[in-house]
Amino acid sequence: MNITYLLIDIDGVLYVGDTAITGANDALGYLREKGYRFRFVSNTTRKSRKSISTYLMGMGLVIPESMIFTPLLAAADYMKSRGRTRCHLLGTPDIAAELRSQGITLDSGDVDYVVVGDAGDAFSYEQLNDAFRLLLEGAMLLALEKDRYWMGQGGLQLSAGPFVTALEYASGKFAQVVGKPAPQFFRLALDSMDALPGESAMIGDDITTDIGGAMALGMKGILVRTGKFRPEAIAEVGIKPTHVIDSIAAIREIF
Amino acid sequence: MNITYLLIDIDGVLYVGDTAITGANDALGYLREKGYRFRFVSNTTRKSRKSISTYLMGMGLVIPESMIFTPLLAAADYMKSRGRTRCHLLGTPDIAAELRSQGITLDSGDVDYVVVGDAGDAFSYEQLNDAFRLLLEGAMLLALEKDRYWMGQGGLQLSAGPFVTALEYASGKFAQVVGKPAPQFFRLALDSMDALPGESAMIGDDITTDIGGAMALGMKGILVRTGKFRPEAIAEVGIKPTHVIDSIAAIREIF
Repeated sequence: MNITYLLIDIDGVLYVGDTAITGANDALGYLREKGYRFRFVSNTTRKSRKSISTYLMGMGLVIPESMIFTPLLAAADYMKSRGRTRCHLLGTPDIAAELRSQGITLDSGDVDYVVVGDAGDAFSYEQLNDAFRLLLEGAMLLALEKDRYWMGQGGLQLSAGPFVTALEYASGKFAQVVGKPAPQFFRLALDSMDALPGESAMIGDDITTDIGGAMALGMKGILVRTGKFRPEAIAEVGIKPTHVIDSIAAIREIF
Repeated sequence: MNITYLLIDIDGVLYVGDTAITGANDALGYLREKGYRFRFVSNTTRKSRKSISTYLMGMGLVIPESMIFTPLLAAADYMKSRGRTRCHLLGTPDIAAELRSQGITLDSGDVDYVVVGDAGDAFSYEQLNDAFRLLLEGAMLLALEKDRYWMGQGGLQLSAGPFVTALEYASGKFAQVVGKPAPQFFRLALDSMDALPGESAMIGDDITTDIGGAMALGMKGILVRTGKFRPEAIAEVGIKPTHVIDSIAAIREIF
C-alpha cells in the first residue's frame, strides 16, 4: 500500500470499556517512528475532544486534543460554511461548551439548526418536544451521528440515532448526518494533514461507518478484530476491507 | 344510510383543549333518542378510561367509562388472546394501573412485550434504554398508537409515534400497532354492541386514522370540521369521507 496518512478510530480500536487495547501505545509509537502521519476520528458525541483526551490519558494513551476529530467539529464546520451559526443543541453540557468555542451560537428559539448528539441522560420529553417545535418553525435537522447504540460499561446504550429518527418521524424532515460515515467528516480530518484519500487509510472496528465510509471516499480500510467487531458483519454488509488485523497492535504486519 | 351503530371519536369531536364543542351534548341526546347505539373510540394513551370519563364530566359531557374504548383495551385483548400477558410498559402510572386491571402483568424483565404509549414527561433516556434492551432480549414491540403529535393546551406535544420509531430503529424490530387505524381496534368496539361494519359509521376529525381506518373495514366515515380537521388533508391523503359536517352538532343533518 502506498500510504502516508492514517485516520484511526478511538473507541474499540485504542480501548474497550475503560481499558487500553494491549500494545496500542506501542503501535502508535511505531507508526510515528516510521514517519506515518495520523489523526484520530471518533463518532463519540457525549464528550468534548478535551474530555476524550483526558479520558484516554487515564488509560495511558497520550493523544492531544488537536489530533482528535469528532462530529462536533464537522457540525461547526458545516454550519459556518453556510453562514448559519445559530442552533439549538440536544446534547451534553460538555458538548455545548465545545460548540460555543467553535463560534456557534446556542439558543432555544429562532435557530437555523436543531443539532442532535448522544445526550444520554440529558434526553427528556420536554427537550425532544422543544426540538420538535423548532423543526416545525423552520429549523433544519443536523445529526452529529445516527448510530443505533454503543457498548457502555453498564451494557448497551442508545446512541443519537434513535432520537434523530424520532424527530424525523415527528417533523417529517430528514436529518443531515455529519459524523461517520459522511465523506465530509473523513475529508475534514484528512484536510488537516493536507492528505488525499488515495494516500490514506482508515483503521476502525465498524465495518459500515469506518471501513465502508472511508473506502467509499477512495481510502484504504483496515478492520480490527476488537471493539464491536463481529465476523458475520463483514458478510452481512458486503464490504471487503483492504486488510483485517487482530488489533491495532498488529499494525506492523502491514506498515 | 342504513346505519344503526356509531363509533365516535372524543378529542376534537366532543371537545377541543378543555372546552366541549357547542351542541355536542345535545347531539348525543338526539342520537340516543333516535335509537342509535354508540361507543366512543379514542387514541388517547396518557389517561385511563376512568380519567377520560372524569375529564369529560368536568366539561359537562356525561360518558360512562364502559362506553369508552382506547388502545389500552385493544392491547390487553391482543396479549390475552395470544396467551402472552407479561409486558414492560412505557406509559403513565394511570395507564399502568388500568393495564393491570385488565389482567396484564407488568414487569421489567423476562417479558413478552414492550408496550409503548404516550408517556409524556415519563419518557426518559433510562426508560427507553431499558425498553431497548428488553427488545434485544426477545420481547416484541406493541405500540398503543403511532401518532406523530397532538394539540395540547401548551402547544403541540409529541405522541407515542416518535418513541415507537426510535425503538424500531434501535432494535431493528417493527411494532404492532393496536390503536386507530388498526381494524382490530374498531372491531373491538363494534363487537361490544354486536354490530357489523356495514351497519356502522365512524365520526372523527382525523381523515387518516378515523375515516380511513373505519372505511377500510367497510364502515361509513363522517368527518367533522373541528379538532385537527384541515381541508387540505382530504385531498392530500386521497380518502373521500361518506359525509363531511361542520361539527357533531350538525349530525341531525344526516341521521
